[in-house]
Amino acid sequence: MVKTIFNPWEVSGNVDYERLVKEFGIERLKKLPKVFEENILFRRGFVFAARDIGRIMLRIKDRKPFVVMTGLMPTGKFHIGHSLVLMQALFYQKLGGRVYISIADVEAYNARGQSLEDSRKIAKEYLTDYVALGLDLKKCDVYFQSERGKDSKKSNAYYRLQNLFAKHSTFNEFKGVYGEISPGKMISSLLQAADMYHPQLKEFGGKPVPAIIPVGVDQDPHIRIARDIARRFNNKLIPISSSYHVFLPGLKGGKMSASDQNSHICLTETPAQIKNKINKYAFSGGRETLAEHRKKGGNVDKDVSYQYLRLFEEDDSKLIEIKELYESGEMLSGEMKAYAIEKINLFLKAHQVKRAKAAKVVEGFFA
Amino acid sequence: MVKTIFNPWEVSGNVDYERLVKEFGIERLKKLPKVFEENILFRRGFVFAARDIGRIMLRIKDRKPFVVMTGLMPTGKFHIGHSLVLMQALFYQKLGGRVYISIADVEAYNARGQSLEDSRKIAKEYLTDYVALGLDLKKCDVYFQSERGKDSKKSNAYYRLQNLFAKHSTFNEFKGVYGEISPGKMISSLLQAADMYHPQLKEFGGKPVPAIIPVGVDQDPHIRIARDIARRFNNKLIPISSSYHVFLPGLKGGKMSASDQNSHICLTETPAQIKNKINKYAFSGGRETLAEHRKKGGNVDKDVSYQYLRLFEEDDSKLIEIKELYESGEMLSGEMKAYAIEKINLFLKAHQVKRAKAAKVVEGFFA
Repeated sequence: MVKTIFNPWEVSGNVDYERLVKEFGIERLKKLPKVFEENILFRRGFVFAARDIGRIMLRIKDRKPFVVMTGLMPTGKFHIGHSLVLMQALFYQKLGGRVYISIADVEAYNARGQSLEDSRKIAKEYLTDYVALGLDLKKCDVYFQSERGKDSKKSNAYYRLQNLFAKHSTFNEFKGVYGEISPGKMISSLLQAADMYHPQLKEFGGKPVPAIIPVGVDQDPHIRIARDIARRFNNKLIPISSSYHVFLPGLKGGKMSASDQNSHICLTETPAQIKNKINKYAFSGGRETLAEHRKKGGNVDKDVSYQYLRLFEEDDSKLIEIKELYESGEMLSGEMKAYAIEKINLFLKAHQVKRAKAAKVVEGFFA
Repeated sequence: MVKTIFNPWEVSGNVDYERLVKEFGIERLKKLPKVFEENILFRRGFVFAARDIGRIMLRIKDRKPFVVMTGLMPTGKFHIGHSLVLMQALFYQKLGGRVYISIADVEAYNARGQSLEDSRKIAKEYLTDYVALGLDLKKCDVYFQSERGKDSKKSNAYYRLQNLFAKHSTFNEFKGVYGEISPGKMISSLLQAADMYHPQLKEFGGKPVPAIIPVGVDQDPHIRIARDIARRFNNKLIPISSSYHVFLPGLKGGKMSASDQNSHICLTETPAQIKNKINKYAFSGGRETLAEHRKKGGNVDKDVSYQYLRLFEEDDSKLIEIKELYESGEMLSGEMKAYAIEKINLFLKAHQVKRAKAAKVVEGFFA
């Protein structure tokens, strides 16, 4: 049996989402407003749970301002698994959310030993994908944790919040939430709590507005500890809301990993690479023999290619058709792979055209 | 026997300076350059030990720039014991040092639970005494830890240093150096390390210059941990130098305490208060009976009034005369007290006139 490891820095083995919902005390999403159902992530259950999302739904309904706070730790390659966070953020942005993006170069330094210079280079690559996926940098507040803007009132307020949050935390809660902890990880966690709450400070736009933080469910410990600390800090800060997506499986199953190239699909890969990877590595939900498959049908839940199609085949009826064909045994694993390769390559082709333009935008943004 | 407690937040009981020199691994000051000997603090052994002070002496000799980094935690009343740090700083400033003053409001919040607003009020009082004692605010960089200046490049660089320093520290060393430690104390210690080293960053004036940190010897743990962290951080930072003063004894002996008004002499007290306090509380080095005193003489080392005169009687020959008179039994404890009261009140009278003017300067500085 594969041991399941689950913490904000590492996920491996099988993830039992039902158990996580109970353990973390998050709410499973049920009936959703129409505008949410129209989005593929919510409709298809990629985003499956949340905390205090009602507060955000109300702001959306009333067309009142709210904040979308997201972060990226620029280590390894940006892959399609990463894109779920951004897709969530873009969804909220379209509904009126003001997007903040924290580039976690301090965390990358403290938790991974990566230099700020390397983080800057890799962050450019990530942001290029973000822009190609639809992010309008001009409508965002993008910053590095090591350098909070050009307005000293804002810089001071941001780091002040980190420093004062420390008083309202204990070593034991860091250990309880993160397992192993070092001064570097602890100070990064406090900075992340400041990331999540600083948009509410008066220096960042006056009246506090609610913030939603879209994350992979493995990041919930960060959310929990930030909420606890902020509650003790004062009663003026509005508790952050959060919504959680499942992991896009890696090619071989488990979570898609930035460091294992046979597990992930990067947004810069070529059609030949995708074809080769999926054919060679993508875990199949098909049966042992052709005869058995024709008779009993395949398992879409286990089939990684089908799981990718849930993200890349936007047409619901087409997706249902594929599911039925596969489960009935009419469609074979090879055919499923071929269809997934086609859809993914179509997406990547368009993305890479946008990416070339986006690279210039990002260069301009950093200049 | 009184238990001796000795850490950066509390000192009580008798302090064995020789033992501290050995335990802390600091250097006892011996032969000093003339310019040091001319200063009462060095000549009379108030400043008795140092780390790497040779580097600073060389800068002074060569008339090259150096930094004087000092801090104040604005809790309790400013008393004559506190003034030793500033007197050290003023000495270095006159020799060409560029003075930085960090107002440790973050530390006061994290270690004492004091609000930033209260710290601001108390800091004004402290700085008023600083200015009255001779500090020229215009020639200093004075800042609050919670608000590092109006230049975002500087603000960012300062807090960045704190955040990156974390990677190069361990929980065990904080525990080893401080005894009990909390996230708040830990983050404050990292911020204090940033205080000590940030003047060397390119954002604060280009080429790194050596810095001297004048402190009471109880603050050495802060110095040690900052030096260790900075050495691991990179090899570009010049290790900070430090010089250590003994404690001015409290009226009843031990260290002068900001929270015990029968132990300290504040710079705002009236002649009547001083007279009353010294007569009532000042520990005497005299003998049990008049006859015994006349025969055996008093002990100046134990006599608190004499210890104060070491600071307030600037005339060396007069001080020697008093010592001889007391040790020979010619001078009585009451006479010693009367002389100390006179000298201290003379000083305070002049100080309080300057203080009234200084208050306006400080108000203007904060406005």
